[in-house]
Amino acid sequence: MTTPFVGPEELMRAAGRSELVRLGANESAFGPSPKAVAAMSAELPRISWYGDPESLDLRDALAAKHGCGPQEIVIGAGIDDLMGLAVRAFVAPGAAAVATRGTYPTFAYHVAGYGGELVEVPYRADGTPDCEALAARARRQKPAIVYLANPDNPSGRFISRDEIEHFYRSLPLGTLLLLDEAYADFVDDAELAPPRFEDRLIRLRTFSKAYGMAGARIGYALTTRRNAHTFQKIRLHYGVNRTAQIGALASLRDDAFRDYVIAETARAREDYYALARGLGRRSIESRTNFVCIEMESPAAAVRVMEELLRRGVWIRKPGLPPLDAYVRVSAGTPPMRRAFAQALRQVLAQASV
Amino acid sequence: MTTPFVGPEELMRAAGRSELVRLGANESAFGPSPKAVAAMSAELPRISWYGDPESLDLRDALAAKHGCGPQEIVIGAGIDDLMGLAVRAFVAPGAAAVATRGTYPTFAYHVAGYGGELVEVPYRADGTPDCEALAARARRQKPAIVYLANPDNPSGRFISRDEIEHFYRSLPLGTLLLLDEAYADFVDDAELAPPRFEDRLIRLRTFSKAYGMAGARIGYALTTRRNAHTFQKIRLHYGVNRTAQIGALASLRDDAFRDYVIAETARAREDYYALARGLGRRSIESRTNFVCIEMESPAAAVRVMEELLRRGVWIRKPGLPPLDAYVRVSAGTPPMRRAFAQALRQVLAQASV
Repeated sequence: MTTPFVGPEELMRAAGRSELVRLGANESAFGPSPKAVAAMSAELPRISWYGDPESLDLRDALAAKHGCGPQEIVIGAGIDDLMGLAVRAFVAPGAAAVATRGTYPTFAYHVAGYGGELVEVPYRADGTPDCEALAARARRQKPAIVYLANPDNPSGRFISRDEIEHFYRSLPLGTLLLLDEAYADFVDDAELAPPRFEDRLIRLRTFSKAYGMAGARIGYALTTRRNAHTFQKIRLHYGVNRTAQIGALASLRDDAFRDYVIAETARAREDYYALARGLGRRSIESRTNFVCIEMESPAAAVRVMEELLRRGVWIRKPGLPPLDAYVRVSAGTPPMRRAFAQALRQVLAQASV
Repeated sequence: MTTPFVGPEELMRAAGRSELVRLGANESAFGPSPKAVAAMSAELPRISWYGDPESLDLRDALAAKHGCGPQEIVIGAGIDDLMGLAVRAFVAPGAAAVATRGTYPTFAYHVAGYGGELVEVPYRADGTPDCEALAARARRQKPAIVYLANPDNPSGRFISRDEIEHFYRSLPLGTLLLLDEAYADFVDDAELAPPRFEDRLIRLRTFSKAYGMAGARIGYALTTRRNAHTFQKIRLHYGVNRTAQIGALASLRDDAFRDYVIAETARAREDYYALARGLGRRSIESRTNFVCIEMESPAAAVRVMEELLRRGVWIRKPGLPPLDAYVRVSAGTPPMRRAFAQALRQVLAQASV
């Protein structure tokens, strides 16, 4: 696997299009905080300066938010970057790493890239990661890392804090839980796994989703000082964009905007559920900024995705069972949702799909 | 080595300062192109979109500039990122990599981080990388990579295209030349090594210096399709900031601004040479945006750097012989140069240094 995802720019070139309704990458259609835009814009004339390699101000703000010390936070160029560092640090060549088959693929990309052995456990039939099977496999395999995305991508499923807690406790002592919480901002804090700083746990967060900063590439790991020190020895010290640091800090201070995005995203999910119902299709209840809608078959789902693209609507679909008959659509603005709904209805009305 | 460089933000916190005259990291004091700022600013509301993972438009523009194909260009989050990928791809654990002792340290950081064995060759007495000694060592050691920065950092020395050509030809066939051309924009194209696309050569370029985009984290490698394909298998596909892509593209189109920066940088170098002469100090002729000025001794150079910091002027100094008695000052604007000159005169007038 050399390319985890084909980007919309490449699709546009191939299709000779200059624009797409972007509903394929779970970007925030509601944009970044206007306060973040203002803060970033004001500082662009100083983009000739490197960003702070230690992200001191941002780590202080995140420490206050999470009730931990800044030494327990590692800033990276998005979760993908931090995930790569975790695999590099903890998965020796030939060592095993366990993940759900068909979940967010960049973990598998990094495991392959660093020479680890990926061991996959199937989803439950409803598209929920199977914590019991993951833990059982981990106890048998004693992997370096178990990867779990919660809420999960591409299913959108959420696993309760009690189940996560039980799962974590049932892993072998030599196994680290890499908990990808890219979409956790869409879940109430009270429902999330409690703060816990132990060497066997790394939680990954991002500004790409609820904060609308995907293009800025900035995320963070919540972990122990010891793990943070390990990251410090291998991370790209000047890898985080200065504008991203400024935007992330300003975003954190704009709770009202984040709450607006979360509420709008919930409305988008409801719209998609209703659309699916109206079309007699199943959808998966999601705690994220995307929804999976079931098609007739995996082949039909591919055709729907291709037909939507032909109509200028870009979505993606899960590639593997049990989710491969679904298409996955990101939360759009009301006009984007209307464009998607109209195109989907047209496509499904055609005999061919 | 866990931290290649201490950033000015950490120094400011330690010193209780809110501002420094930033002349320590060879950033461009002349800022980014106003056209790049305008282009980036206009697109900030869409920073919620991921950047193009293939940087198609930027690679097309760079291919036109360098007279090669876009498939011969790899975009990364700055040269440090691309250097890390090169080391990861080509230096197996335990394999040797050759570099000049005391040159830009991030290459050594990556070699250590990926478990390679760094073999160092001293500078010539005048601070020029010693191509003859590097090549001789490479022929004896058969390393995976030889790293050479040209123009060099921290010396500022430039090696002619004929000498580079001879050097490249005299390396063993199994050795790759990683040519770090971070400062090449300050040298006329006609003086640079000719375009050459062979698997044993990777040239690294950046928007951080003459283009004034250090905080954006964007650079590129010029190499063969085969090497680019190797990078494709391990690089962070969504690692480059969208704003940086937009700014880089706009910067490339603003030749007038780049020419202005290059001319201003040349003036700054002349000012520093004159300052050194006036103080009875030696300086090293530089082809970059910084100049090294000699102090009484390595210890005196450290004291001068510390005393300048106390006066709010941030510079760095080379850490190893034969350059460790020098301080290195980046090209500043005229007011920054005056602030540096005044502070340096004060410091040198004190008996203690």
